[in-house]
Amino acid sequence: MTESWLPSLLTATPEEGYALAIRLSRTGVKMTQPDAAVRERLRATYAENADSLMGASQVIAINFQTVAAANGYWRR
Amino acid sequence: MTESWLPSLLTATPEEGYALAIRLSRTGVKMTQPDAAVRERLRATYAENADSLMGASQVIAINFQTVAAANGYWRR
Amino acid sequence: MTESWLPSLLTATPEEGYALAIRLSRTGVKMTQPDAAVRERLRATYAENADSLMGASQVIAINFQTVAAANGYWRR
Amino acid sequence: MTESWLPSLLTATPEEGYALAIRLSRTGVKMTQPDAAVRERLRATYAENADSLMGASQVIAINFQTVAAANGYWRR
Amino acid sequence: MTESWLPSLLTATPEEGYALAIRLSRTGVKMTQPDAAVRERLRATYAENADSLMGASQVIAINFQTVAAANGYWRR
Amino acid sequence: MTESWLPSLLTATPEEGYALAIRLSRTGVKMTQPDAAVRERLRATYAENADSLMGASQVIAINFQTVAAANGYWRR
Repeated sequence: MTESWLPSLLTATPEEGYALAIRLSRTGVKMTQPDAAVRERLRATYAENADSLMGASQVIAINFQTVAAANGYWRR
Repeated sequence: MTESWLPSLLTATPEEGYALAIRLSRTGVKMTQPDAAVRERLRATYAENADSLMGASQVIAINFQTVAAANGYWRR
Repeated sequence: MTESWLPSLLTATPEEGYALAIRLSRTGVKMTQPDAAVRERLRATYAENADSLMGASQVIAINFQTVAAANGYWRR
Repeated sequence: MTESWLPSLLTATPEEGYALAIRLSRTGVKMTQPDAAVRERLRATYAENADSLMGASQVIAINFQTVAAANGYWRR
Repeated sequence: MTESWLPSLLTATPEEGYALAIRLSRTGVKMTQPDAAVRERLRATYAENADSLMGASQVIAINFQTVAAANGYWRR
Repeated sequence: MTESWLPSLLTATPEEGYALAIRLSRTGVKMTQPDAAVRERLRATYAENADSLMGASQVIAINFQTVAAANGYWRR
């Protein structure tokens, strides 16, 4: 049985939660473009476009909302 | 009676929840473009555009918020 | 007295809730462009553009969040 | 004392709530472009662009989330 | 000690809450472009573009969600 | 042990919360483009584009939703 890439939304800290939000965002890209070589090629131009970078930050922000809510915002 | 494509928002695991979010996102596309051949053709160029891929990831993120909330974030 | 196009946000099933989310999304378009003939004409090119289709899916996703919350996510 | 354009987020029905969401969306536009003649001119081309129409529907959807939550989703 | 530009998210009325949402949206712009003269220049073309105006309305809508939730939707 | 860049989502005031939302938004950009020199170069043109500035404000708005919810909207 293969290990799940997403066993839980719970993380020990907000920082780990943010890292999970990034992973969720990248997985959304992978699901549409499974070819890692193509993604790598696209990434080169992507990382040089300010609007694309802000777009990536937006997707992370949306996923971070989910992760933060799941963790009760790490309030204690 | 045909089976529902969306019998429930509940899933056993976060990973299955993410898969459901992808299904919801694709259904939103299908509802506007029901022709599978057209969608397949569009997909070819789509999957080569970094901003399009991030756009897909964003829609998945929004749907994942819904699915995660429905499942109480799989907290236990 | 004319019938309301939106008597309630409650639906019997998630699938009907998703259909309502689509209706809400289309109504948002109609409110800005009330001419059905214009909308039909725009739809032809729209349905051939992958980013436009994903944009439609995004609006549906946002409306589905509302409908799903209204229905307590159809948890039982 | 002038009457408020937004005395309350509460509406009697979902349909009125949706109408309020449209009003909120249009007010956001007015606040940036207060000149009604300019808005009218822009509207002409806007209403002929499918992506613009979907963009309008998206803003309405976001505002409808707020109005629907305020009204407890008109559950009873 | 300088006065805070955001002492509270609480407002007396929905209309004031909407005004606060506009202030939040503009602050987000200022934080990236602190030069008021540049912002003024950009505003001229911005206010003549329908999609830009709708984009501004969208950011206001997102901030209004926050302000409205903070105020318990001004339910009483 | 290095200090976390995100030890907590809790802040003393709404203004500090907004500053945290900005930090979250910028981190999302950094994670995709880790080269500070490239980001600085992109920022020059970015800060001269009204739609880009509004896009930045939108990401901040989404992150502010998270931070504000985490802090119970600083209600008392």
